[in-house]
Amino acid sequence: MKKMFYPESVVVLGVSSSLDNMGKFIVRNLQQFGFKGPIYAVGSRSGEVYGVKIHTSVFDIPEPVDFAAILVPAEHIPQILIDCGRKGIKRVLISSGGFSEYEGGKVKLERVLLDIASNYGLRFLGPNCIGIVNMDNGLCLPFNPMDPNDLRAGNNSLLAQSGGVTLHLGNIFSDEMAGINKMVSFGNKLNIDEVDLLSYLLEDESTKNIFIYLEGMKRCHSFLELAGKSRKPIVVLKANRSPVAGEIARSHTAALASNDDIVEGALRQAGIVRVETLEEMVLCAKVFSLPPLRGNNLVVLSMSGGLAVIGADSSAKYGFQLPSLPDDLLKYIEERRKGGVIHLTNPMDFGDVYDFRVMFHTIERILALDYVNGLVVSLPYMKRMEVYLSKTEGLSLMGKTFRDWTERRNKPIGLSFFTTRSNLDMLKKQIEFPIFDNLTDSIKAFAYSRAFWQHH
Amino acid sequence: MKKMFYPESVVVLGVSSSLDNMGKFIVRNLQQFGFKGPIYAVGSRSGEVYGVKIHTSVFDIPEPVDFAAILVPAEHIPQILIDCGRKGIKRVLISSGGFSEYEGGKVKLERVLLDIASNYGLRFLGPNCIGIVNMDNGLCLPFNPMDPNDLRAGNNSLLAQSGGVTLHLGNIFSDEMAGINKMVSFGNKLNIDEVDLLSYLLEDESTKNIFIYLEGMKRCHSFLELAGKSRKPIVVLKANRSPVAGEIARSHTAALASNDDIVEGALRQAGIVRVETLEEMVLCAKVFSLPPLRGNNLVVLSMSGGLAVIGADSSAKYGFQLPSLPDDLLKYIEERRKGGVIHLTNPMDFGDVYDFRVMFHTIERILALDYVNGLVVSLPYMKRMEVYLSKTEGLSLMGKTFRDWTERRNKPIGLSFFTTRSNLDMLKKQIEFPIFDNLTDSIKAFAYSRAFWQHH
Repeated sequence: MKKMFYPESVVVLGVSSSLDNMGKFIVRNLQQFGFKGPIYAVGSRSGEVYGVKIHTSVFDIPEPVDFAAILVPAEHIPQILIDCGRKGIKRVLISSGGFSEYEGGKVKLERVLLDIASNYGLRFLGPNCIGIVNMDNGLCLPFNPMDPNDLRAGNNSLLAQSGGVTLHLGNIFSDEMAGINKMVSFGNKLNIDEVDLLSYLLEDESTKNIFIYLEGMKRCHSFLELAGKSRKPIVVLKANRSPVAGEIARSHTAALASNDDIVEGALRQAGIVRVETLEEMVLCAKVFSLPPLRGNNLVVLSMSGGLAVIGADSSAKYGFQLPSLPDDLLKYIEERRKGGVIHLTNPMDFGDVYDFRVMFHTIERILALDYVNGLVVSLPYMKRMEVYLSKTEGLSLMGKTFRDWTERRNKPIGLSFFTTRSNLDMLKKQIEFPIFDNLTDSIKAFAYSRAFWQHH
Repeated sequence: MKKMFYPESVVVLGVSSSLDNMGKFIVRNLQQFGFKGPIYAVGSRSGEVYGVKIHTSVFDIPEPVDFAAILVPAEHIPQILIDCGRKGIKRVLISSGGFSEYEGGKVKLERVLLDIASNYGLRFLGPNCIGIVNMDNGLCLPFNPMDPNDLRAGNNSLLAQSGGVTLHLGNIFSDEMAGINKMVSFGNKLNIDEVDLLSYLLEDESTKNIFIYLEGMKRCHSFLELAGKSRKPIVVLKANRSPVAGEIARSHTAALASNDDIVEGALRQAGIVRVETLEEMVLCAKVFSLPPLRGNNLVVLSMSGGLAVIGADSSAKYGFQLPSLPDDLLKYIEERRKGGVIHLTNPMDFGDVYDFRVMFHTIERILALDYVNGLVVSLPYMKRMEVYLSKTEGLSLMGKTFRDWTERRNKPIGLSFFTTRSNLDMLKKQIEFPIFDNLTDSIKAFAYSRAFWQHH
């Protein structure tokens, strides 16, 4: 499977220089993402795209080739796949759609492809998918133009049946400081499925966390067995839960719905974190880039009394305890407050102190407490903040400081801001630390972290 | 109560020109927000702030005054309130904290204030709050510096015990195209409470939707009776649901927790939309700025098959039906698709058509169908989109078109984009139409709209 992600050379089949040809974008993406090995192109007419010569047959390429990406109409694929086999190519991506996900069904064609693969000892991804992006080596195979600036490199890997979901999550993860290592859209998973891919990612050294979007499960037992042994967090969104979803999913990736209750129980037993929405998947991407939450004891800090109340409600909802803080720490804070109008407790309303330096010192001391497993803090962002932190250096220093503290104590800080979306966006760009959209989200995310780490 | 929101003149008591004086910011906010009537200032030392003379006594003001905003330490308030009464001021805001929300308790002081108010026939808001912002007349009374550019005028009014929550929601609503009409932080609600305020907002012509954040309810019965008669949507976030929240809420606004199950049932019976988080309140602000959803029949449109599956799951979760579309419409779309690989149904994966003009025409025709109550659409945002819509004019025209269609058919469109947060932010600035963060959110919001309008 490693060769799927780290081939030494790639040929794209189905390339032409015409305006609406999509094969040529694969060539371009490989170049743009800095794939180091030779890139070849094959099409029905000879020519050139982006400086790459278009051959009319794979046999015209003098060198051996490791990997083939195929994007031609479904009915031509058998012959092309045979050619790949004869050329000695062992790893193939079939991007084209038009197989069993189409209403007419072309199941016979699928059978033919499987037989060819078996005859030539080759493995293929797809059909009906956008393939692989490997940020490690620039293997970027989607057939739509990709911009390397939209993706941040990191240690999260994504598997998704849907190409749209793959690209979307890739962009959002990157935007939210959760960088991508590998992402794979595997479509109809005729030959290579989520079990093969998961098995590889569990061994892949550059992958730390694994995120999987599924519309159907075929080898459920093997999947759960593998996942059960994983020491890396695995987050699964199993869509296609309702009868209507079943109909569209069959059309989308030929996926069959499974009984949702059974799936839920089985995933939980295997120690998998199950989410219901893409947004919850993004929450997981943030929280699993923080140290583990190993227990139920949280401290909630806010500069608004209203948010402290909401934080207490959310903590109760997700089953967290809010233990009391030591007297000497409370005394330290009390001596620094202005109006003396607020009762200091956990959740703590810091509105009466309103001093970022005191708050940060408090955070550092709270993390050092043995009985505290994690801390969530909601900071206001207003123009006034710049009195305390210089707008740029202050914010980036804050991210660095929080990262140092969480790593030293091996406990997470769930950071959020009490501000508008536009400010949040600005803050996310400046602070190199995961930022949750709001206090409730940070507590919900902590529940996912606890769920995984209590078994590991 | 109208005089509370539309006074002709205002005096701020507790003003000085010192750096940390907060009373002077009230003077400044009134000026910045364009309050038209005379603004007076009173403080212990004479002087001037922002061109306004500081008197040392309210009796030094030659003219009569309508409204007083008081921000002095708690123990000085009784005398100041008596002075206001003698001066003939009938409407007062007491911003200062330090009353029963403080652990020591100053309940006796509260009793004194109530007696003074009763003697002089005056009504007061607070204590322990940031008061009123009325976008209609520029009455802007918070004691922190406010920027008029952070708030958009509109027809949503907010009531909240917490000052932080008030300001935060005001900013977020504005940022999300849900403009503000009036917002009130009412703190300990000693004299004026949510029932008085709600009663006024129900009659207020410029208020269309009402949003209320409560930490405790005192006159529960009157509140529910009033709300039950409302023809305006009322959305309530009743925080302080858990025992720990109870402790901090008591400290924050002296609120007592109520039995949550009873509150839930009673609110529902009164036709109130109850939400659990501030983010859900923002969802409601968006959906109630759209025409009502009057039924269960939705159409889900997306350009990604994965999202269509997720849309079907979300529709099932919130109890919506996805009826079939008429054959002539399906035929129209089928004739325009490229690969012929996708089964056309509801939810509809438009990925194979990928033409915004065809999609928009489809939306228009779907809204015209009698049996369809609303439509949710998830658009991709990629650089490719600009092939179809010119980046600026196209997007703003799209917002205008969607608004026209929803108004003509009196049905909502739940618009979302399948893109990064940064792009979403850009789109929200350009499209004058509510944009949900994602497809699931738009369907969840539709459930709130249905819940309210099925009773009204």
